[in-house]
Amino acid sequence: MTVLAQPDTTASAPREAAQDARRAQILDAARTCFARSGFRGASMQEICLEAKMSPGGLYRYFPSKEAIIEAIAQDERCGAAEIVQAMRGPGPLLDRLIGCAMGYFGYMRDPGACELMAEISAESLRNSEIGKRFAQIDDSVRDIMREVFEEAIEKGEMPPIEDLDATISMLQAAVDGIALRQINDPDLSLARMEPLLRRLVAGVLGMKA
Amino acid sequence: MTVLAQPDTTASAPREAAQDARRAQILDAARTCFARSGFRGASMQEICLEAKMSPGGLYRYFPSKEAIIEAIAQDERCGAAEIVQAMRGPGPLLDRLIGCAMGYFGYMRDPGACELMAEISAESLRNSEIGKRFAQIDDSVRDIMREVFEEAIEKGEMPPIEDLDATISMLQAAVDGIALRQINDPDLSLARMEPLLRRLVAGVLGMKA
Repeated sequence: MTVLAQPDTTASAPREAAQDARRAQILDAARTCFARSGFRGASMQEICLEAKMSPGGLYRYFPSKEAIIEAIAQDERCGAAEIVQAMRGPGPLLDRLIGCAMGYFGYMRDPGACELMAEISAESLRNSEIGKRFAQIDDSVRDIMREVFEEAIEKGEMPPIEDLDATISMLQAAVDGIALRQINDPDLSLARMEPLLRRLVAGVLGMKA
Repeated sequence: MTVLAQPDTTASAPREAAQDARRAQILDAARTCFARSGFRGASMQEICLEAKMSPGGLYRYFPSKEAIIEAIAQDERCGAAEIVQAMRGPGPLLDRLIGCAMGYFGYMRDPGACELMAEISAESLRNSEIGKRFAQIDDSVRDIMREVFEEAIEKGEMPPIEDLDATISMLQAAVDGIALRQINDPDLSLARMEPLLRRLVAGVLGMKA
């Protein structure tokens, strides 16, 4: 993915690929720095060092730390959309929901992913500009959950829910909490979590685990 | 509570009370600063300003930012122990568990409490010295949960649990996630959360909500 829209000609394609690689390299380095030092703590200098690039080279791609954070937020939005797709599609509702959550937990085990999420969560609490950049992810996950639940209720796959908004918030909150904790808790391996998560989700939705 | 152990004579008691008040004032100011700027971002100078004290005055109570963080961790350990007591005592198991969680959620609604918890969580992920200071809280909550569950299983109040460690971790993780999210989510008022939390906990424990 590139921010610079270019005609896809044979002449520009290799240049575009090199630019994309450079951009990805910067974003990887920035994630490492943000995970280590926080969004506020990490400096452009630290990101340059981590990316092994000169400031001049880096500024050609991103004019500011804010621009880097926005690019990461954009990538996260795409990543979340992909994971959340597991909620749709065929198969029993509970399997789809658990599959989606397990995909999320797996993703969060990538190096730095969890630290970055904790940073995002702290910024969201502060309701800062950084926090707002990531809030859209949450909203889009919410929309898909609502759609999936409404369809399942209509089909009789789950009982009607009295307070759908609170139910969705509760499940999001619980899954986020588990995603964060599983990283350092040896008792929360993916295999041991799955049957318990199934009971949790079934309990909240009033279904049979 | 004072760090300076003093003989409880009529002469020293007023002085001790004044010292306690001063100390509490500094810790309140430090919580505000940590919530706003993070453990790493907040400086001793910022804490002095917030506490309306000179550096000389502040250093008489706390020689370093680390000493302040340790004092806050100590207070948090005491606060957690108090909240967790609700799990013990008479009444049905599910009522006691929900009562404890609701007490925790209520506490987290205090100004700054949630931002501080997010900071603690980020530091725990980094496995930093700051994170370790707070890890003991988690362990003591865990110990009480285990004790309460084992007793309830013995009394036949809940079915036996196959993987008790993972079950405890899962509940801790879910409750922490909810505690964090409820602050900014209008759909998670305490009243709307309670019945859903009951279904969640009952589901995980294989009980009837």
